Amino acid sequence: MAITETKKGVCVSGFKAAGVREGKYGVALITCDKPCCSAGVFTQNSCRAAPVVLTERRVKKGIKAVIANSGCANACVKEGIKDAVKMSEIAGSLLGIKKEHIGVASTGIIGRRINLEIIQALALKAGKKLSNSPRSSMAAAKALMTTDTKPKQVSVRQKGLEVGGICKGAGMIAPEMATMLCFITTNADIKQSRLQKALEDSVEKSFNMTLVDGDTSTNDTVILISSCRRKCSESRFQKLLDYVTTGLAKKIAQDGEGASKYLEFEVKNAGNPKEAREVARALAASPLVKTAFYGENPNWGRIISTIGNTTGVNPMKITINYSSRNGTVDVFNQGRNGDLKKAEKVLKQKGIRISVNLRKGKAKAVSYTCDLTEEYVKVNAGYS
Amino acid sequence: MAITETKKGVCVSGFKAAGVREGKYGVALITCDKPCCSAGVFTQNSCRAAPVVLTERRVKKGIKAVIANSGCANACVKEGIKDAVKMSEIAGSLLGIKKEHIGVASTGIIGRRINLEIIQALALKAGKKLSNSPRSSMAAAKALMTTDTKPKQVSVRQKGLEVGGICKGAGMIAPEMATMLCFITTNADIKQSRLQKALEDSVEKSFNMTLVDGDTSTNDTVILISSCRRKCSESRFQKLLDYVTTGLAKKIAQDGEGASKYLEFEVKNAGNPKEAREVARALAASPLVKTAFYGENPNWGRIISTIGNTTGVNPMKITINYSSRNGTVDVFNQGRNGDLKKAEKVLKQKGIRISVNLRKGKAKAVSYTCDLTEEYVKVNAGYS
Repeated sequence: MAITETKKGVCVSGFKAAGVREGKYGVALITCDKPCCSAGVFTQNSCRAAPVVLTERRVKKGIKAVIANSGCANACVKEGIKDAVKMSEIAGSLLGIKKEHIGVASTGIIGRRINLEIIQALALKAGKKLSNSPRSSMAAAKALMTTDTKPKQVSVRQKGLEVGGICKGAGMIAPEMATMLCFITTNADIKQSRLQKALEDSVEKSFNMTLVDGDTSTNDTVILISSCRRKCSESRFQKLLDYVTTGLAKKIAQDGEGASKYLEFEVKNAGNPKEAREVARALAASPLVKTAFYGENPNWGRIISTIGNTTGVNPMKITINYSSRNGTVDVFNQGRNGDLKKAEKVLKQKGIRISVNLRKGKAKAVSYTCDLTEEYVKVNAGYS
Repeated sequence: MAITETKKGVCVSGFKAAGVREGKYGVALITCDKPCCSAGVFTQNSCRAAPVVLTERRVKKGIKAVIANSGCANACVKEGIKDAVKMSEIAGSLLGIKKEHIGVASTGIIGRRINLEIIQALALKAGKKLSNSPRSSMAAAKALMTTDTKPKQVSVRQKGLEVGGICKGAGMIAPEMATMLCFITTNADIKQSRLQKALEDSVEKSFNMTLVDGDTSTNDTVILISSCRRKCSESRFQKLLDYVTTGLAKKIAQDGEGASKYLEFEVKNAGNPKEAREVARALAASPLVKTAFYGENPNWGRIISTIGNTTGVNPMKITINYSSRNGTVDVFNQGRNGDLKKAEKVLKQKGIRISVNLRKGKAKAVSYTCDLTEEYVKVNAGYS
């Protein structure tokens, strides 16, 4: 059965959205018109922003709507929880929903108090624009952006079953502190405990392999809300959900701060799944590996050194392959250099897949990232 | 008893050195004129370069001299060990020492075979320049340089006891793959097992807190050779050794690739020594923290987020202080912002100490690093 991409974003059947942005602040609203079911995955950082603390509690009981803002993280501020509750009251009174059923998410600078007057003004404007049209989902995605250069949404349909999502996040090169917010909607009729499990599994394969969680920000949030209108098998739902989360994860990597290239690191034949994941993530995290790709420099020594730092290997058994639209080439094969001239040609493309064969076992993992450029430094030296 | 800095470098009494550089290749020689005792600390990377494998074995039995080259790492090449042995033969015949008593160290590009003709030609020239003068130690330090902008040497004397060292290493921003080579000489009469223990302890406090080992390169090497001429207590020797290794570690951080600022992260009142070390190292490793200092941006949110990713803390108990020649300021104190205008002034200096008080226990650690700049990206995109 084919999965069809749609333009709906989070505006799948049963949902409305809106987004408004003015200057550094933006506000997005997403709401479900039916009694519904929700799940969430949140930052593991021990310094958790107030909206994370509040929303994690509420998601378990079930939320029907979300208010999210960019411009201020509402993190590490004494009045944080009070202000986050107030944000849910603002949304609740606009949407006619009890505040307890509203999720709150924030992204922006840490350590500053959120300006509730601005939030209220933007939320009022957004409330008037709520609709089920794809354009409204896009407006919500735009309202979340901080250093992102593009709004990000992916949505799919398969025989009446729908899953759609929007997200923000662009600091993938230094993923540990780039807040990722993601909101996913669906009409799948799945009970809460299964919904939560499906979301956790899906995040593990997608966002956690773009390293967003490895060292998560104070505010990282992924929320899934279902209108529970459509019966479906759990496995079918999982497939659609994975499609959306992996699609969004790739978009985050492609929009990495200052990125000039999109990189996928595939690790094959690792000794076990943990090793495969760790090596794939370590490669995606290494500044020296990432700058080499920026420089279109077939310097595979940095790759093998990163592998050797992450796990026990015999370098003489490893193969490293680069592929892109310009072809495929083994740059290092069990102790021998490959055709580095050809490698240089392969590296000229914007999208590159690096495949590492460890020849230890059968486990596999893929990570998603981008290169490291001067522009990244500029963005992050100046961001405030 | 005062410790006096000297200009001798590795040319402490009983030692000679020389260095020659031509183009990308450089060769350094260091040799002891007496039967002597040696110790070494080597990379933990599972992909170890051939000279590391060879030299670790030899150091235990005792080496009297070292030949080191820049320009090629002699790593991940099938002929690596054979070529490393050949290098020791070249040095051995020049110095009149059995090859088994010669240590070998290399730094440069991984995955290329070393050019022994060049090594031999440079070694011959170096052999003719061997001397005990401070200038010869400096020439050896210069011969080791790759992306370093400055040669690095530190040497001290206290009542006839001498310790001196030279090192290279400049990729401190992405320390995992910047090879560090360090050679230390002394006249201390300490038996081999104690010499090894003293070196390990000293490296732990110095180079390992500049993150060189956290994820070490394929080639990282620290070698200590003693002429055993001078009786001394172990504790007195340890103090001088620590002075040299910490001094060299700071020089590496100050010469970080593309660095515009030198940063020290002090973690106070951690729950235990491991936590103190981990937080100090995590702060020194974070690209977002480092770019913020480059931008002279008092964005302490990135610091607290990094701390929260590393260990369990209550942010409302933490104090973060910046100090420099321009003054000292608490930018965040247990939930409250400090004077950020004053912080901006403090950040205008080239050397900055960041002190974090966790208020959990009594443990302490300091890490050494530098900021992350566009220049770092340029250096690493182009390096080949």
